[in-house]
Amino acid sequence: MGFSTFGRHVIADFHGVSEEVLNDFDFLRSALHEAAIACGATVVGEQFNKFEPQGVTGVLVLAESHLSIHTYPEHGFCAIDCYTCGTEVNPEKAYKHLVSLLKPKRAYERGLMRGTGEITNLSKKELKVVNS
Amino acid sequence: MGFSTFGRHVIADFHGVSEEVLNDFDFLRSALHEAAIACGATVVGEQFNKFEPQGVTGVLVLAESHLSIHTYPEHGFCAIDCYTCGTEVNPEKAYKHLVSLLKPKRAYERGLMRGTGEITNLSKKELKVVNS
Repeated sequence: MGFSTFGRHVIADFHGVSEEVLNDFDFLRSALHEAAIACGATVVGEQFNKFEPQGVTGVLVLAESHLSIHTYPEHGFCAIDCYTCGTEVNPEKAYKHLVSLLKPKRAYERGLMRGTGEITNLSKKELKVVNS
Repeated sequence: MGFSTFGRHVIADFHGVSEEVLNDFDFLRSALHEAAIACGATVVGEQFNKFEPQGVTGVLVLAESHLSIHTYPEHGFCAIDCYTCGTEVNPEKAYKHLVSLLKPKRAYERGLMRGTGEITNLSKKELKVVNS
């Protein structure tokens, strides 16, 4: 049967992040890999781009789906999403790990449940990270 | 000042798609590129993976953010998201183009507005595709 189609998709906007951090290609690449490990995902591919005069986009393709970041250093802003299929990997852990590394002054998050019919909002309970 | 942080993120689940289509790496890669063009985005990178025994993940990095697909041929299911910053590129057009190519029996969609504070639901009006 392969993988279940059930999945959780965490979408997060970080405001008030250091401009230097948001332009640091190597740091951001490491941070995404660390976040993938933190949530128990398996990285199978990646694509990172540095934009001129500023900004980085990075996407990790996971065995469980993907983790991405898009940065706007001049605005202290970055946009993150982590989508993982199945119940074993919790994308909330990746989000929390990135909060700890990027230290946004404000972080806004939404969680969606996918793959089972209507795409619904995840409750706070369903987003809760256990054992982390 | 660079790009605006305003962005729209369309998240869509397709059910009842042909198993053959969802395992056709070349078709899916072409479909994603076509969808990016359809919404007026600029592709700056890509990462595609074929899984064994089935399934394809593809991500296009756009100048405006990203477009991704994850397929589960054995379930006739695929998950799509298209996130674009700024007001010129409309991710809804990419979604509609993929509907026309992949012909799902059922498609569920959510639209989010990002980059301006709380991540809010896009209204149907805001998702509406004009001139397409």
